[in-house]
Amino acid sequence: MTSPTLAPPQSFDDIRALLSKLPPPAEDCAAAAHARQAELTKPAGSLGRLEEIVEFLAAWQGRAMPSLARARVLVFAGNHGVVERGVSAYPASVTAAMAANFAAGGAAINQICATFNLDLNVVALDLDQPTLDFTEGAAMSETAAVASFARGMAAVPDGADLVAIGEMGIGNTTSAAAIYSALYDGKAGHWTGRGSGLDEPGLARKVAAIEAAVRLHRDKLGDPFEVLRRLGGYEIAAMAGAIVAARVKRAPVLLDGYVAGAAAAILHAQDPTVIAHCLAAHVAAEGAHADVLQRLGKRPLLDLDMRLGEASGAALAAGLVKAALACHRDMATFAEASVAGKLES
Amino acid sequence: MTSPTLAPPQSFDDIRALLSKLPPPAEDCAAAAHARQAELTKPAGSLGRLEEIVEFLAAWQGRAMPSLARARVLVFAGNHGVVERGVSAYPASVTAAMAANFAAGGAAINQICATFNLDLNVVALDLDQPTLDFTEGAAMSETAAVASFARGMAAVPDGADLVAIGEMGIGNTTSAAAIYSALYDGKAGHWTGRGSGLDEPGLARKVAAIEAAVRLHRDKLGDPFEVLRRLGGYEIAAMAGAIVAARVKRAPVLLDGYVAGAAAAILHAQDPTVIAHCLAAHVAAEGAHADVLQRLGKRPLLDLDMRLGEASGAALAAGLVKAALACHRDMATFAEASVAGKLES
Repeated sequence: MTSPTLAPPQSFDDIRALLSKLPPPAEDCAAAAHARQAELTKPAGSLGRLEEIVEFLAAWQGRAMPSLARARVLVFAGNHGVVERGVSAYPASVTAAMAANFAAGGAAINQICATFNLDLNVVALDLDQPTLDFTEGAAMSETAAVASFARGMAAVPDGADLVAIGEMGIGNTTSAAAIYSALYDGKAGHWTGRGSGLDEPGLARKVAAIEAAVRLHRDKLGDPFEVLRRLGGYEIAAMAGAIVAARVKRAPVLLDGYVAGAAAAILHAQDPTVIAHCLAAHVAAEGAHADVLQRLGKRPLLDLDMRLGEASGAALAAGLVKAALACHRDMATFAEASVAGKLES
Repeated sequence: MTSPTLAPPQSFDDIRALLSKLPPPAEDCAAAAHARQAELTKPAGSLGRLEEIVEFLAAWQGRAMPSLARARVLVFAGNHGVVERGVSAYPASVTAAMAANFAAGGAAINQICATFNLDLNVVALDLDQPTLDFTEGAAMSETAAVASFARGMAAVPDGADLVAIGEMGIGNTTSAAAIYSALYDGKAGHWTGRGSGLDEPGLARKVAAIEAAVRLHRDKLGDPFEVLRRLGGYEIAAMAGAIVAARVKRAPVLLDGYVAGAAAAILHAQDPTVIAHCLAAHVAAEGAHADVLQRLGKRPLLDLDMRLGEASGAALAAGLVKAALACHRDMATFAEASVAGKLES
């Protein structure tokens, strides 16, 4: 499939144009899935959110019987100039070391993908060239932000039927918190957590950096894409691109946690319908992620106190999604199993 | 393994004697698992409840490195005389029909087990002989209740390393609600839900039946095992037996939802420590299950609006547990992966 709508964008205007012509849900497919649910050997609605998930897959894949033969986990990695402000418990070198760990199969995400038989693709975005320190200027040029967005788009394979999206990047919870502060309100402390394990002085430095950045860029934060390029990072721009490409390619999305939420929040601020094909995989134990999800209108599938990133929560939720589809696809109907239906009252 | 403590009990006194000598958790194994977590390539604690799960497995399996090679899902099926009161949306014949559906591989639980590679064993308990209608007398004799408990014990295989416990039985949410009313307080309406889909008149009949039963048996409800035999069912007694046998055989337990909770509540009322090796797989969308779990001191792993039974929630949670162990067992350490550790602040 080589869709003309998926030519790489060259500017924020190109991205805005792309967002204006995204495919709608296939309501007829969702309705067909809903009708089948009523025939299966279980009380109506008794599988709860598993039934909702299947109808969601049907709507956004555009298939009455969804498929999960080609589920893909995407992890985008980037480095952040703001790390120089002492906002992370780990050195910037850990981003590249963890990318190598992903490649060698040694990280948490590798084990979760192995458990649920999910393909994993890690996209490292110029790790030797961090973004600029956004307390001193914009993190990225428009050209760099759009290029990262395009790399995220290109990472979504043709024919993918589910995409789980996450990230790795020392310093990127600072970037995400800055984005939330800019989009929602200026109170940095509310949005900010300890990331990979900051102590009190580190947390104070992190909040101070976010406050300084929001102050520096305050006149330009009315445009969500300006928020992205000024306060974001390469991996956040790439996740936004992957979310959009997945919509075009009819692959529903599982959003990972706190940092992936920032990519979704940028798109949502531009147009809330742009992320309608996304499920929140989990609510993270980082910052005010629960508040973010509420603003995005997403009820998380999981709440397990996780705060790792790496798409770990999204991949876990993909296991649930696989089970949901297995029930829908492979259960017997009342007629097939000769099970009596509901009594007339 | 033929443990002398697992001779089939002949009386409630035999069961009480068994409960008084259950093995404690292996704190040293939990500590070893905790120590390994700190070496793995992730920020300390960032896998949240996945880390807690692994330490729980270590403690109750008695192994520093837990195993899940022999995870078993157990579904106990029984029929209930109280169905004659019009308390279910489905006829009693559905219990046997669903047991056949399990055997043929057509039910939801079969698909979830297939997704996560879990063994399934269904134990049908004399489906052609329902319990007595507990609005008219005790549901079971002590002999019958103890025999069902023993069948539940026998269903836990030697060498099992995880047991997911659930049930099937038309009418059994009425039995479970009656048990909760008896153990916690007499307000039947609080504990009672619509089961497989009762309408308003049906719900009123259900609440009335529970109120009548609690009134009839009120002088005998101080003893949890009397609550079990008067208001319970064969599958509820069997689940209690399976929970206890799993403890003795060092298999941690995943409790399914609303009805499985009644088996746990009976044991908990006898001695809260008896269910310390059990995790609540999910909070069900039935009655006041969330309130039950709070009283049992269990935070559920999942909250997906499910109300099917069949161990469906427990089997879903088993998928999470498998992923948790895979991370613990197979992740690289900081040293192995040459990833730098935390900065000194």
